Amino acid sequence: MSSTELPKKYKAVVYDKPGTISTKIEELDMPEPGPGEVLINLTHSGVCHSDMGVMLNAWKTLPFPTQAGQVGGHEGVGKIVKMGPATETAAVKVGQRVGIKWMAGICETCEACRAGHDASCFSGKVSGYYTPGTFQQYVLSPANYVTPIPDGLDSAAAAPQLCAGVTVYSALRKANAEAGNFVVILGAGGGLGHLAVQFSARAIGHRVIGIDHSSKKDIVLSSGAEHFIGIDETADAVAAVKELTNGLGAHAVLVLTANNAAYANSLDYLRFGGRVVCVGIPEHDPVPIKSALPGVMVAKALQVVGSAVGSRKEAIDTLEFAARGVVGTKFRVEKMEGLTKIFEEMEQGKIAGRVVIDLS
Amino acid sequence: MSSTELPKKYKAVVYDKPGTISTKIEELDMPEPGPGEVLINLTHSGVCHSDMGVMLNAWKTLPFPTQAGQVGGHEGVGKIVKMGPATETAAVKVGQRVGIKWMAGICETCEACRAGHDASCFSGKVSGYYTPGTFQQYVLSPANYVTPIPDGLDSAAAAPQLCAGVTVYSALRKANAEAGNFVVILGAGGGLGHLAVQFSARAIGHRVIGIDHSSKKDIVLSSGAEHFIGIDETADAVAAVKELTNGLGAHAVLVLTANNAAYANSLDYLRFGGRVVCVGIPEHDPVPIKSALPGVMVAKALQVVGSAVGSRKEAIDTLEFAARGVVGTKFRVEKMEGLTKIFEEMEQGKIAGRVVIDLS
Amino acid sequence: MSSTELPKKYKAVVYDKPGTISTKIEELDMPEPGPGEVLINLTHSGVCHSDMGVMLNAWKTLPFPTQAGQVGGHEGVGKIVKMGPATETAAVKVGQRVGIKWMAGICETCEACRAGHDASCFSGKVSGYYTPGTFQQYVLSPANYVTPIPDGLDSAAAAPQLCAGVTVYSALRKANAEAGNFVVILGAGGGLGHLAVQFSARAIGHRVIGIDHSSKKDIVLSSGAEHFIGIDETADAVAAVKELTNGLGAHAVLVLTANNAAYANSLDYLRFGGRVVCVGIPEHDPVPIKSALPGVMVAKALQVVGSAVGSRKEAIDTLEFAARGVVGTKFRVEKMEGLTKIFEEMEQGKIAGRVVIDLS
Amino acid sequence: MSSTELPKKYKAVVYDKPGTISTKIEELDMPEPGPGEVLINLTHSGVCHSDMGVMLNAWKTLPFPTQAGQVGGHEGVGKIVKMGPATETAAVKVGQRVGIKWMAGICETCEACRAGHDASCFSGKVSGYYTPGTFQQYVLSPANYVTPIPDGLDSAAAAPQLCAGVTVYSALRKANAEAGNFVVILGAGGGLGHLAVQFSARAIGHRVIGIDHSSKKDIVLSSGAEHFIGIDETADAVAAVKELTNGLGAHAVLVLTANNAAYANSLDYLRFGGRVVCVGIPEHDPVPIKSALPGVMVAKALQVVGSAVGSRKEAIDTLEFAARGVVGTKFRVEKMEGLTKIFEEMEQGKIAGRVVIDLS
Repeated sequence: MSSTELPKKYKAVVYDKPGTISTKIEELDMPEPGPGEVLINLTHSGVCHSDMGVMLNAWKTLPFPTQAGQVGGHEGVGKIVKMGPATETAAVKVGQRVGIKWMAGICETCEACRAGHDASCFSGKVSGYYTPGTFQQYVLSPANYVTPIPDGLDSAAAAPQLCAGVTVYSALRKANAEAGNFVVILGAGGGLGHLAVQFSARAIGHRVIGIDHSSKKDIVLSSGAEHFIGIDETADAVAAVKELTNGLGAHAVLVLTANNAAYANSLDYLRFGGRVVCVGIPEHDPVPIKSALPGVMVAKALQVVGSAVGSRKEAIDTLEFAARGVVGTKFRVEKMEGLTKIFEEMEQGKIAGRVVIDLS
Repeated sequence: MSSTELPKKYKAVVYDKPGTISTKIEELDMPEPGPGEVLINLTHSGVCHSDMGVMLNAWKTLPFPTQAGQVGGHEGVGKIVKMGPATETAAVKVGQRVGIKWMAGICETCEACRAGHDASCFSGKVSGYYTPGTFQQYVLSPANYVTPIPDGLDSAAAAPQLCAGVTVYSALRKANAEAGNFVVILGAGGGLGHLAVQFSARAIGHRVIGIDHSSKKDIVLSSGAEHFIGIDETADAVAAVKELTNGLGAHAVLVLTANNAAYANSLDYLRFGGRVVCVGIPEHDPVPIKSALPGVMVAKALQVVGSAVGSRKEAIDTLEFAARGVVGTKFRVEKMEGLTKIFEEMEQGKIAGRVVIDLS
Repeated sequence: MSSTELPKKYKAVVYDKPGTISTKIEELDMPEPGPGEVLINLTHSGVCHSDMGVMLNAWKTLPFPTQAGQVGGHEGVGKIVKMGPATETAAVKVGQRVGIKWMAGICETCEACRAGHDASCFSGKVSGYYTPGTFQQYVLSPANYVTPIPDGLDSAAAAPQLCAGVTVYSALRKANAEAGNFVVILGAGGGLGHLAVQFSARAIGHRVIGIDHSSKKDIVLSSGAEHFIGIDETADAVAAVKELTNGLGAHAVLVLTANNAAYANSLDYLRFGGRVVCVGIPEHDPVPIKSALPGVMVAKALQVVGSAVGSRKEAIDTLEFAARGVVGTKFRVEKMEGLTKIFEEMEQGKIAGRVVIDLS
Repeated sequence: MSSTELPKKYKAVVYDKPGTISTKIEELDMPEPGPGEVLINLTHSGVCHSDMGVMLNAWKTLPFPTQAGQVGGHEGVGKIVKMGPATETAAVKVGQRVGIKWMAGICETCEACRAGHDASCFSGKVSGYYTPGTFQQYVLSPANYVTPIPDGLDSAAAAPQLCAGVTVYSALRKANAEAGNFVVILGAGGGLGHLAVQFSARAIGHRVIGIDHSSKKDIVLSSGAEHFIGIDETADAVAAVKELTNGLGAHAVLVLTANNAAYANSLDYLRFGGRVVCVGIPEHDPVPIKSALPGVMVAKALQVVGSAVGSRKEAIDTLEFAARGVVGTKFRVEKMEGLTKIFEEMEQGKIAGRVVIDLS
């Protein structure tokens, strides 16, 4: 498709009243890729709880409030339709399917980038907040930061992997746990959680103990967990984990909920030398991790680490696992027009699995 | 020296009134090394703040109160005078100088031992608490757990390295910081601190920023720190560290004080991906690390790890550094009779450097 | 069972004419466990190709020729029937099922032991060569070096895991390859090979490309390999691997054959940064690895590493994988009397899978 | 300086007769930085032995012969005088001093780049071969791949660090050797060698055993080596290393010479678990490493790894060590006109230290 065939206008969903759940479809002018950029014709975008956080200005730590007219979304999949200047050495080309993720572009030059910390780039661009996101039919992206979508992986299925999948895969790689080790997953039945169980148990070979509300038992076990602990049915989850691990505790704990209570005793599940990986970010006033006591951490040589979104390479690896069928998530497909309603359902906790918007 | 030449009795210093500062010299019967054990004629023992903790029953977390008659001490050096049965394959022999450290013996068979976590051995024996310690002229030890003392290293100089040296060296190895990286040391002028500055700056090649009371400036800088920050003279130590590190913060922080206030903002000194190593154990009621907030740890990919005493190998490496003159500590030598007075001075904060007891 | 109930004599199979394939059953006196030792009533022993190497004096590098009367074997399983003196802190007890492996005991004190290199212990005892092995009904072992057998794992099934299983699991841990990475296994259909395919594909989650004679295709694929390359049917196996790996080559190569030809081009299968793990030891005059050319290794940042038998911890982890059914090997059970015949079959290449001796 | 002040023409040294030692000064047109590029006014360029390799077409493995008119050089330092389009997020700006190194630009998108293997980039541009190099007054470079020069580091002194310094620092980081470990450096007195001794001994804290011709003894010891072995004066260098290392051998060996004989026994210097790092690339027909025998590598768990030029981050770290005075190299400064003569001296082995061209 040559650029002359591109329409002059296209459809996008914007946050028209940031601070409230409200979206609106607008017609936008077709943008032109600048140097090093590609123009992508998006066909699908996942809808993530973080989008709602941006729309509602829910996180106090973000540097500025979301503006009316912001195009949201950060789980987009589509085809490159135009290459900007200075993209000769890029590894992608017109016609190729690629994805856009939460971190949509990095500077490649700051200390964080040089050290391989994509997520900490001093000029990192978050899709759907710093830049127009993926709730639209066309989007610009740095050519060197898109994620190629493997053949054989459905575009709609790929979308949620670009955020939820990458996040949990990256967190698991930081868990310092080998195949055969015990990993406790807090929030194992949620959107991130059930994918984490799949990556942990099926891709990496951990022995997973999933913890969540007892209503999530089926999804946790069917995702590959060896054991499930219903937090509402178990008086002492720490004791239950110890019993399942020869009295020793787990090698690692992933905290995927945004719940301070889940963090509070997270270190208590660990054996000597074990590691808690923090992923979920509690809202409201930040609270220290109650079990992060120097005396106990020293005595048992415990570790706590934070893990943000994954790197470009981890995104590619994540999609490879999805393409091979090792991991996958349940989702339903909706039209662009339904986005406000989807966010309303999300707020009411009514969504099972993920929702993907069909942008065509 | 054959066993027949050994005296029947020898001198030891015991805690005669645990809970108070009080020691007494007693005559004890010469013990006989059991299978796998060696008998060591000690000539020197360091006196460590942890000995006072044991004597005073200060740590609530220890499993049982110290008994009257306990021989304290865990930094002993002397010569092997007798090998017990079943020590044929031991790497040490009669006449060799060896040391005893805090962890005086491990089981070699529990999960922690198999995983290389000496300090977490389920049956680990702490010298001077679980077993008769090094404030005596003769001591038994597992043949395979003594620390050979390198030729050319004075026995009195070796003693403090067996606890303070090993502890800080092991903690620095867990700091995840390379040569040339910035390391902040909290409590840099103390007994552990000034040794940590030496190991960090001179042995490993870190760029050390020492933080302590301004009265410690000289010892911190003369130990090799590139910068010193007087905590009592600096309104904002975190800002000062940022300024010294191109606005980024340090790669690692070592907390060597037992001060909850030092822990409180310890993570604030770090750059993206940085790591706090906990060593000092605050007394009284345990307090979570105030800056260990999941949201911040995730956003900056921060890490907090606990480090207890070092392994057998780290002890040997520590003494090698001391023998080569890379590190060394100031100490004065006292007689066995003076131990009570030394503890009194210690409680009053009057001891500069370390004290070593001459046991001969 | 108390020691008084133990028989005075028991049966063992010895190499009566080392240098030839010949074994003989003898009656031996019941030994008494020394300090730190346990006495084990063995019920099963695997028969490994290395046993034949010892019997035949085939390896020039071994320090002394095998003596007539040597009890061979190094894959033994049985129950502890007696604890020697000084075993109070041991993690095992009378009645517990335990295993004996190739490295039957280490000194715990030499530089290699302190550095965690069990296999390089300066005084390491090889079962069935340095010490009486597992082709007998009773054997002595250091209490702290036996391998506990998990409940639910059949003793006969456990035996081959103690050598073949541990060896390939340890080698794979040194392959520097993550879940989802491509691993080429040379000799994928052999005794070590098919187990390596299982560990690599099923336990660790690698994408395995097995290479062997085309007659081994079924066992390689049924063990979990994603692809099979018949070395006798493929003109250019290196090109075939490149094609299966997006033109890049594999992340790691395991050489499990004792074939210099397999080693010759082993580095050619690798992508940038890839690693060859050497396991098989060619007999006769040693030959350098033909593809280990400094120029190529520098240009592609390649790595070659040697891996001997695994550590105590790796043995325990190996049996855990076997107990969970993640890995397993085909074997048939024979009587002690048949050992000479088994070795004859082995020499003729007639044994499929492994043979385990019933010692009861 | 605005772009209008830039001259229309500038001076460059080109290879006018590739295959022979011959250079010529030419006037070239001032180039215009493209998207993502910067224009640098170079003031200094080091002259490296690899430049001669390119000029003489000495390496058979390079993909195409050097063309007449090629501007050589890959150790350039100067100031940015103009930023191209799409450099807004670059970490550098007009007026800043920056350096150009061997790998002058990478694609950031290929599998090697994503995995952090700069040196293996499928489209990597080698300065002075793929692109016009640093033997000229002005050069273009990707904005995100220049190396900032720290304040306080002389431009002439910085130049040789950009190749020799980065190469040895990167190789030492791959040596798997900690502070206090023994590192043998083969070719310790050469251009790479004496810098490697400095990095190893002074920056990282290794105990260095330098091996070279006895005429190099002074420079090796004054660079920080603990021991020197004159290869022409020592009957058995391997035995000499064993003696200096308690009979165990070194933890790591760096091979910095392009000498097959040096490689031949390189593994023999190692203790169990030790690692040889290959850096020097022998010319002529490639020869396998004679001591890379599978049997020995398995028995001692040895490792051999190749290391090419370092990454962008390693370049920055290298210059930081140089700016702090931890490492430094001897060099003399010559004019552009003298380049042919310098190469002639180089071929005759007459150059001590490095030569830097003043381009002003």
